[in-house]
Amino acid sequence: MEPRVNFITLGTHDLAAARRFYVDGLGWRPAFEVADEVVFIQVGPGLLLALWTAEKLDTDIGDGSRSADGPAPVAFAHNVGSDEEVVAVFDRVRAAGGVVLKEPRMSFFGGLQGYFADPSGFRWEVAHNPGWSVADDGTVTIH
Amino acid sequence: MEPRVNFITLGTHDLAAARRFYVDGLGWRPAFEVADEVVFIQVGPGLLLALWTAEKLDTDIGDGSRSADGPAPVAFAHNVGSDEEVVAVFDRVRAAGGVVLKEPRMSFFGGLQGYFADPSGFRWEVAHNPGWSVADDGTVTIH
Repeated sequence: MEPRVNFITLGTHDLAAARRFYVDGLGWRPAFEVADEVVFIQVGPGLLLALWTAEKLDTDIGDGSRSADGPAPVAFAHNVGSDEEVVAVFDRVRAAGGVVLKEPRMSFFGGLQGYFADPSGFRWEVAHNPGWSVADDGTVTIH
Repeated sequence: MEPRVNFITLGTHDLAAARRFYVDGLGWRPAFEVADEVVFIQVGPGLLLALWTAEKLDTDIGDGSRSADGPAPVAFAHNVGSDEEVVAVFDRVRAAGGVVLKEPRMSFFGGLQGYFADPSGFRWEVAHNPGWSVADDGTVTIH
């Protein structure tokens, strides 16, 4: 089984609010969507972010699956190339209605780092990590 | 803000069990790890899966952040090119100790689809979706 993720599906209790945040607020263009059903946004090579409802996700999975409420024990990170870009992203996030959980501050890895929550409570890290890089072929180096 | 995800960080309550499943069980090779701290696995171009503890993730985020227990309202998908490959992945997952939540069955999108949970409860979909494809430049088409 090849290590590969093709979809990140966020189960939200307010799909309209999630769409407003990512599409209208952050300006992320849907690759495909079905009104009031699902929104797909490409967030990497071969990778789609899917906005769906937690209820439909649970129903699709079936027996015994019931998502917990509260912040999911997961975070997604968006890395940028400079401290200035971290600050600029937080300005954009704030304008889009994101909730800042941790204002950008110097991290143990030597660059600015902060966290925000989307309207469904999903947590995103935005960071400038000088020890992280991506080669032209997509290979990631981190130390 | 460019639509881009660079890290998927899973907060687990048993990092050793998570490592056993992904590294020993599925055979996903760490790109970098710090023993008993964190494991990074490359799962796409520019994309790392990070195995961390829910406690450390919450601490990193700071004030007021406390992950809920129970299944997170999120799922990750691993897409393959045929129904046979879906079945083969489930054999591997079962051997690795994954919990099958939904045995592969014909989905509304016309290919086999199933779900499993990793030892921390994170849900993964494995699917063959004939309406989904990735071009050489990484662009995803879905309809």
